Amino acid sequence: MYNKDKHHHNAQEQLENIVYGRNSVLELLKVGKRSVNKLMVAQTARGTVITEIVSLAKQKGIAIHNVPPEKLDRFSEHSQGIAAEVSPMEYTELEDLIIKVKQLPKPLLMILDGIEDPHNLGAIIRNCVTFGADGVIIPKWRAVGVNGTVSKASAGAIEHIAISKVANINQTIDSLKKNNFWIAGAEKSGQVLLPKEEVALPFPLAIIIGSEGFGLHSLTKKNCDFLISIQQRGAISSLNASCAAAVVLYEISKKRR
Amino acid sequence: MYNKDKHHHNAQEQLENIVYGRNSVLELLKVGKRSVNKLMVAQTARGTVITEIVSLAKQKGIAIHNVPPEKLDRFSEHSQGIAAEVSPMEYTELEDLIIKVKQLPKPLLMILDGIEDPHNLGAIIRNCVTFGADGVIIPKWRAVGVNGTVSKASAGAIEHIAISKVANINQTIDSLKKNNFWIAGAEKSGQVLLPKEEVALPFPLAIIIGSEGFGLHSLTKKNCDFLISIQQRGAISSLNASCAAAVVLYEISKKRR
Repeated sequence: MYNKDKHHHNAQEQLENIVYGRNSVLELLKVGKRSVNKLMVAQTARGTVITEIVSLAKQKGIAIHNVPPEKLDRFSEHSQGIAAEVSPMEYTELEDLIIKVKQLPKPLLMILDGIEDPHNLGAIIRNCVTFGADGVIIPKWRAVGVNGTVSKASAGAIEHIAISKVANINQTIDSLKKNNFWIAGAEKSGQVLLPKEEVALPFPLAIIIGSEGFGLHSLTKKNCDFLISIQQRGAISSLNASCAAAVVLYEISKKRR
Repeated sequence: MYNKDKHHHNAQEQLENIVYGRNSVLELLKVGKRSVNKLMVAQTARGTVITEIVSLAKQKGIAIHNVPPEKLDRFSEHSQGIAAEVSPMEYTELEDLIIKVKQLPKPLLMILDGIEDPHNLGAIIRNCVTFGADGVIIPKWRAVGVNGTVSKASAGAIEHIAISKVANINQTIDSLKKNNFWIAGAEKSGQVLLPKEEVALPFPLAIIIGSEGFGLHSLTKKNCDFLISIQQRGAISSLNASCAAAVVLYEISKKRR
């Protein structure tokens, strides 16, 4: 048991500095925000995206290592034959995020309070970029950070959006409120029902998505200005966290145009 | 390598007859469509949902085994302390599905053509139930079937919707067309743009979602009456398969009311 945990811990640490998967590595190089120490390409990797990645890496003078495919399996069985060793993700300070975002028309931030599954976190960040949110806030503790698995699940979207890591979500809500943000919690029993409520949503707006298992914390919920929920009609009325985020972001992106 | 594959194969087979996770087991017992051979409860499992499950199982005269938690880890690390041994999922014959669904107002079917990730398949079925689709069609080959992992990811939604497994998607499209179904493919470059196109979508309607990596097959795409896509505004315009399905189903569920 001890060994298993230790192994897991090391793998996690490693993934902080690894980006893998075709789209993630391509976006990493295209956006160019993080410094890339080396590119590892499986000897068996083929295809137009791989060619594009290798040519971009050459242009940028990045060392390219052709490696046996098994070497990449160490990082993930879903490496798709490509991985990059990178500088750690640079998070944006909350203050800087607020200053930057406040200048935009109809600012929209997403607060992800306690997402535990890296695939969900990646999918939600992908939704944020796809539907034009301006930034993402995640907690420092008791939640997954942005590692290689998240990058892969985001299809490289993490390179395209400012992400802040905060010590305390409720203090963050206070700071946002002081900066005129409206705080909305996504919640099954919310009073603002999408799409029925044809309210013009107020901006600047920050939307909180709770954890997969437990939703919003009760204190967080109390700190929200209002709660929004999605109209559903089936025998089961629940969505997974990333699907709920997709629908909320989709609906809000309409109202922002 | 051989041993690993063999183990994987056995685990997959086992999962066909196992439902695990609190919501999945609860819905399994509530809906009562499948026969349950035994309920396995971890000796450490506690909570209101566990109590509800055990009481339901007692009512139904199902054998309850209190087991060491490690026993359930064999099925999945996400068992949440509860698992049931069940009769295999009963798929609905395509003909029966069509007959049943045609009688409903504005029939809506979802065709999932080649979803490989059981978590995505489960999440999409959950979306289908949440937004009131009338049935799901999946291929027999080159795609994941409905096993315990899918059931868990669907939060038990698989118990609430008719699912057909078909040998050939394009023959299925033909059968649906003969029954007056409109066939829509979900595709990045679709001509019907949600939400911009205020078209009244035609019913009965079947929507095809392609595979995670490659989208719709070219032949399938050719067989569609029209293609729909989701308006996006970000630097990356892609959604994962389950998030795209959620948005499409959400938008269509509005038009069906």
